[in-house]
Amino acid sequence: MNFYLVLRYNSVILPKIYPDMAVNIQNILSLNAKNMRRSVIRDLLSVANRPEVISFAGGFPNPATFPIEDLKIIMQEVLETEAVSALQYGATEGNEKLREQIAKRYTAKGLKITKDNVLITTSSQQAIDLTSKIFLNPGDTVICGLPSYLGALQAFWSYQAEPVGIKKDEELEETVKLLIAQDRKPKFIYTIPDFQNPSGVTMNIKQREYVLEIARKYDLLVLEDSPYRELRFEGEEQPMMYSMDNERVILFGTFSKTFLPGFRIGWIIAPVEIIDRLVVAKQSTDLCTPVFDQAVAAKYLEKGLFEKNLGKTIELYKNKRNHILACFEKYMPKGVEWTRPEGGLFLFVSLPEGYDTMDLFNVAIKENVAFVIGEAFHCDGSGKNTMRINFSFMNEERTEEGVKRLARAIEKMLNVSK
Amino acid sequence: MNFYLVLRYNSVILPKIYPDMAVNIQNILSLNAKNMRRSVIRDLLSVANRPEVISFAGGFPNPATFPIEDLKIIMQEVLETEAVSALQYGATEGNEKLREQIAKRYTAKGLKITKDNVLITTSSQQAIDLTSKIFLNPGDTVICGLPSYLGALQAFWSYQAEPVGIKKDEELEETVKLLIAQDRKPKFIYTIPDFQNPSGVTMNIKQREYVLEIARKYDLLVLEDSPYRELRFEGEEQPMMYSMDNERVILFGTFSKTFLPGFRIGWIIAPVEIIDRLVVAKQSTDLCTPVFDQAVAAKYLEKGLFEKNLGKTIELYKNKRNHILACFEKYMPKGVEWTRPEGGLFLFVSLPEGYDTMDLFNVAIKENVAFVIGEAFHCDGSGKNTMRINFSFMNEERTEEGVKRLARAIEKMLNVSK
Repeated sequence: MNFYLVLRYNSVILPKIYPDMAVNIQNILSLNAKNMRRSVIRDLLSVANRPEVISFAGGFPNPATFPIEDLKIIMQEVLETEAVSALQYGATEGNEKLREQIAKRYTAKGLKITKDNVLITTSSQQAIDLTSKIFLNPGDTVICGLPSYLGALQAFWSYQAEPVGIKKDEELEETVKLLIAQDRKPKFIYTIPDFQNPSGVTMNIKQREYVLEIARKYDLLVLEDSPYRELRFEGEEQPMMYSMDNERVILFGTFSKTFLPGFRIGWIIAPVEIIDRLVVAKQSTDLCTPVFDQAVAAKYLEKGLFEKNLGKTIELYKNKRNHILACFEKYMPKGVEWTRPEGGLFLFVSLPEGYDTMDLFNVAIKENVAFVIGEAFHCDGSGKNTMRINFSFMNEERTEEGVKRLARAIEKMLNVSK
Repeated sequence: MNFYLVLRYNSVILPKIYPDMAVNIQNILSLNAKNMRRSVIRDLLSVANRPEVISFAGGFPNPATFPIEDLKIIMQEVLETEAVSALQYGATEGNEKLREQIAKRYTAKGLKITKDNVLITTSSQQAIDLTSKIFLNPGDTVICGLPSYLGALQAFWSYQAEPVGIKKDEELEETVKLLIAQDRKPKFIYTIPDFQNPSGVTMNIKQREYVLEIARKYDLLVLEDSPYRELRFEGEEQPMMYSMDNERVILFGTFSKTFLPGFRIGWIIAPVEIIDRLVVAKQSTDLCTPVFDQAVAAKYLEKGLFEKNLGKTIELYKNKRNHILACFEKYMPKGVEWTRPEGGLFLFVSLPEGYDTMDLFNVAIKENVAFVIGEAFHCDGSGKNTMRINFSFMNEERTEEGVKRLARAIEKMLNVSK
């Protein structure tokens, strides 16, 4: 057996301490704050921000996918025809037309929902945050993957909950049973079933059924975080977990990867009982999601522009994936392994066991190339030999040069260690 | 002595309970969720939403103040010249130009800050939420006014903290001492020094000095919530509390009342030590505030359009205040009292002691007029004879008709009770 109970990983850079202040902040911080973890990605990004650095670190969509010309027209239309409502306060639940459009797209995929099951959130990060806030007490456990999305781990930690990572599906039931025996029954199972961040792996229908079976058996909620699902380049679409159980699954969606991240529009699909609680939580958090952006997004969907642009985005990212895979084949030294994702934005790369990508980072940054260490995605501090590589953002030339530099850095490290 | 330790007010409508769900939500909700209070304003607003109802309930800015034509131009400019960054993910701290513009406006008012003291938030509600999250543990106390802003109370409750209300400044020190003696030392003093919501009252410099003196004496932080400060119609500007102590005050600002609410742009001004902690908290909450809206706001300020529009807004609201005061003089029955605010958006109205504005609301809604019960702003359930009246949103004709209807409803209630 190979599961981990949570240990904090140590490599995380803690908030700075300023000793000279009149008020000693350390003494009055909440336990939530003391349990928060600064995003390792953010700190790496600040190092990787120099123009000479080729960075595979961010999870940025390609700006070529931003429908700038369509936006020019739609924004003028919104300002011409509905400025008074689009610039005013809005409902906490979100723009009604947008909720209808989102519900419509999901019902076409087999979900039994209406707009009443849709809460617009300020990014899907807020979706995770609000769900954490209404369900997690300090010490509560959450099952997640090893690796899993860093932002979700951050949200769980920020409420003093403990993500418990599992490496393989087969560990799920034993982990749940053990936690129950320890009187630490998990509140939910956090999953990213399609093109998982960072691993790029997609769960097949059997795996989804198994997770739901365990959830029903032990009466757990399932969080289906789904930012990448629509970015499938090939292979067979798997059913959404929400379509397989609409009483136990909470679904998070976002426009950040399929439309644009700058609007920060996400959503939660859930039973109305849960939406009702989330609305109360959202009232005290930001009252409502930016209203103008929602009006623009609603119109963009109504006009059918979303589907058109999505098709182009998939084509672009498919080519980018093919290109980076070709570069990896060409340049990577023996012993390095990587995933071949059917969609999404990331490759997940492993060095031989025993190597640490944090050490590699220090070599790589001298070669002017950056990535995210895989450890950041492992709630138990494991995964030290892994890293996440984004392929959506960069052009072909920079990608090839970046892979060359990365391969060189890896060779250097492997040689030094010999 | 007349201060209150916190009792939950009872009139709040609790979240609905749905008995038929597969997962029993009640059993797994967090203590935070169980302590959350649904906004009474929101529920009143839903009743007041029928077109025949004249509503003084919302705190909505007047749409005539929205600079629609300027926005048309600026949005095109942003899409022409900086679309790639304005539609992409942004920094958690916020748009650098916007932070500079905001810092510049405050330094002109005597604050010793730079952009490093500015964190852009998704509405000033998020400013309150994040500050609560990093400082408040369950059971922690916060000093606030009786009455005080409902959204702040909601945020405090959502982290299981206890707002402790004081009616008069003179109660402040005794309340602090008592709480310390009970081992419940407050984390901070929450204030809205300019045109307080809902009372419309402004603290003079002596009152501000006194609050800061107590804060220093007992080593407390002061939250200066400042959404209305720039909407002064008359009288002398008082110094910002942050300008009087830049180590102990955390300042919240927003564009919601002076530019437009639909962008949901607020900010926190604080010592960098605190900003640093808030940034970590914001990472897991929504990663960054909507980026396009920030770029538009930055350009709007850079072009000097903000100041121009603010002047017009003040003029408009001053006239509206004068008009509603004239209507109150003309129509209100004897025994009704109201404030004469020097700025802001609200009148605060009192019925004779012993009357309950919740009863009045039921009469008023039959007369097709609505307001917010004052009790909603009192963390201890007091203030039952008070109500908040907004004057920024409605035109003169509807305002007069609304005051007539309200006066009629009050007369009916007073007569019934005789």
